[in-house]
Amino acid sequence: MTDAIVFTRGVPPTEAFPTRQLAECFTAVLEGDTAVVLQYGQQQGYLPLRQELAKEYRVSEAEVLVGNGSLHLQDLLSAHLIRPGSVVFTEQPSYDRAITTFRRRGARVVGIPLESDGISVQHLEAALKRDVPAFLYLVPDFQNPAGATLSREKRQRVVELANQYGFWVLEDIPYRKLRYQGQEHPLLREFDASRIITLSSFSKLLSPGLRVGFMLAPADLIKAVTKLEEDTVLSPVLPSQAAVAEYIRRGWLQPNIDQLKALYRPRWEAMANAVRSHLPGAQAFIPDGGFFVSVILPEAARTENLMGRAKDHGLILTPGAPFFADPHDGKAVPSNRFLRLPFCAVTPAQIEEGVRRLASLL
Amino acid sequence: MTDAIVFTRGVPPTEAFPTRQLAECFTAVLEGDTAVVLQYGQQQGYLPLRQELAKEYRVSEAEVLVGNGSLHLQDLLSAHLIRPGSVVFTEQPSYDRAITTFRRRGARVVGIPLESDGISVQHLEAALKRDVPAFLYLVPDFQNPAGATLSREKRQRVVELANQYGFWVLEDIPYRKLRYQGQEHPLLREFDASRIITLSSFSKLLSPGLRVGFMLAPADLIKAVTKLEEDTVLSPVLPSQAAVAEYIRRGWLQPNIDQLKALYRPRWEAMANAVRSHLPGAQAFIPDGGFFVSVILPEAARTENLMGRAKDHGLILTPGAPFFADPHDGKAVPSNRFLRLPFCAVTPAQIEEGVRRLASLL
Repeated sequence: MTDAIVFTRGVPPTEAFPTRQLAECFTAVLEGDTAVVLQYGQQQGYLPLRQELAKEYRVSEAEVLVGNGSLHLQDLLSAHLIRPGSVVFTEQPSYDRAITTFRRRGARVVGIPLESDGISVQHLEAALKRDVPAFLYLVPDFQNPAGATLSREKRQRVVELANQYGFWVLEDIPYRKLRYQGQEHPLLREFDASRIITLSSFSKLLSPGLRVGFMLAPADLIKAVTKLEEDTVLSPVLPSQAAVAEYIRRGWLQPNIDQLKALYRPRWEAMANAVRSHLPGAQAFIPDGGFFVSVILPEAARTENLMGRAKDHGLILTPGAPFFADPHDGKAVPSNRFLRLPFCAVTPAQIEEGVRRLASLL
Repeated sequence: MTDAIVFTRGVPPTEAFPTRQLAECFTAVLEGDTAVVLQYGQQQGYLPLRQELAKEYRVSEAEVLVGNGSLHLQDLLSAHLIRPGSVVFTEQPSYDRAITTFRRRGARVVGIPLESDGISVQHLEAALKRDVPAFLYLVPDFQNPAGATLSREKRQRVVELANQYGFWVLEDIPYRKLRYQGQEHPLLREFDASRIITLSSFSKLLSPGLRVGFMLAPADLIKAVTKLEEDTVLSPVLPSQAAVAEYIRRGWLQPNIDQLKALYRPRWEAMANAVRSHLPGAQAFIPDGGFFVSVILPEAARTENLMGRAKDHGLILTPGAPFFADPHDGKAVPSNRFLRLPFCAVTPAQIEEGVRRLASLL
């Protein structure tokens, strides 16, 4: 039996973690700011980290909330914005845990088809004529799960629609800084921030175990979500937030991102090449960055029991359906033909072999 | 203007934090267990810490959940146990944030009068004839806010009632190990654990900023709360949990507790003496441990606008009412005559002076 090749979750590999540097930062902040880091408080997040983020994103400190991972902030934001009868729009496919979070907080989730340059604005406009959502959830850069990036033109249009119809747009950008080619587009908030909530984290840039995520939004929204956070966890976990602030202060973040790109770029190329050469009949999203290539398998592909057959051949795949708010929507890609292929935690050789195995099963 | 003396929150003073030792533990676990500590996962909490706790409390690992502070676990437990129409019983007075959490999750909270040896069993039995609660919340050792400790006899009786009527008892024991005199009583779970959920944390024994709290309960309840936790925060913050595990593994926890007692004992004595000598007409709860002395001021005391008048005299107090689920219940202490007096973060000299100022205002 060959070793299993795992194309499932979007997790960084252990060799991506700047362990020694993080240890130094933890020591520095524990000893240098003991009275704050080891105490209750800083409900809106560790102040020096909020200051670093405010500077980077050109917002005020009152517009920054740092919490125990971005999923927690997303959950609290959902608790604040979702009311009985609320609708939330997502791309279709979208991040499965986001869909779950919105539903658990009581929303009806409507999936808007995703195209190679991001959400279908045509379908979005049609959906807005039926329902105005509490918010639209987007992963505009190197989307999870598909890898697509929202074009500049569509970004501008989405912001216009948000202002016109009066709904929030939640732009979730954890992968944005991991770009392997091409120029980045402006953030949605750079067109007009009044209806935009930006969510991101250091999970992909430093370490997921630290659980340091942040939200940028108008000050009154930040205040309301901070209150919910305080009522839920009292204070955030401060040593890890302070270690991240120290890491940034020392100027180590950009060099670390450069190292991550050097580690991930060959894997990204290997996945792009393998998909192109072994899955010629599939429609592939090859992103300009991030963690995920995705494919829509040919109509004739043998997708029945694909997960199980792949496992028997030493290939672990994630089913497509959980990424679809409405897997049975006729306009959408059939979810059983959609595959997310994360490449960051697997070597080029594993990628080549894994896609070869996949092709042999179709 | 003299410096203000602060008798408000139950926070440890900065000098109580074993900073250097914690920094060593962070470094050790980041470097020694990188692939786990810096990664997603360990939804039920960092395994070596769960193993330490399982050993100490003589339960299985499946009966231990470690989360981002005990308040978060309490909130998730509430989400799991509270249903529309649920009633929760607390001591009256009780921990204000607990009352808030239970209400926010939809419970009607009923306060059962607290006596000097813990909750009034007579009133509890009377209340059970009207409602069976989803759970009864107790702080059995050195209660927050009153300082009272539940007697051995009452512990046994509460466990019997829980089994007889079929309700959970949540025993919250963050102060238990900070005993300055006398023998400890068994935990409620030591009589019969089948209806008992034990909640505690390292906030008072190591540092609140770490946010490491834990829950002990039957495995199926732990499993349900873990699922809610995963859906909310994905993974817990792992470096701080791992640092605590390492701290325990090195045998440093008990010596640290001994040092804390040496730091707090003179403050506890000072508070007890000051209350006895300066507030002779007040009914005082002098605990055998923990963070709080409390007093019920004499009926004739001038309690109107006491917080404001105290502030004008350089004394910061916490109002009593938020500790009372039902401040207008005729059976209970009038909440405007109840004062919680935390002594751990103030020096004996400040305590003496603060209580003297308080007495002068009555």
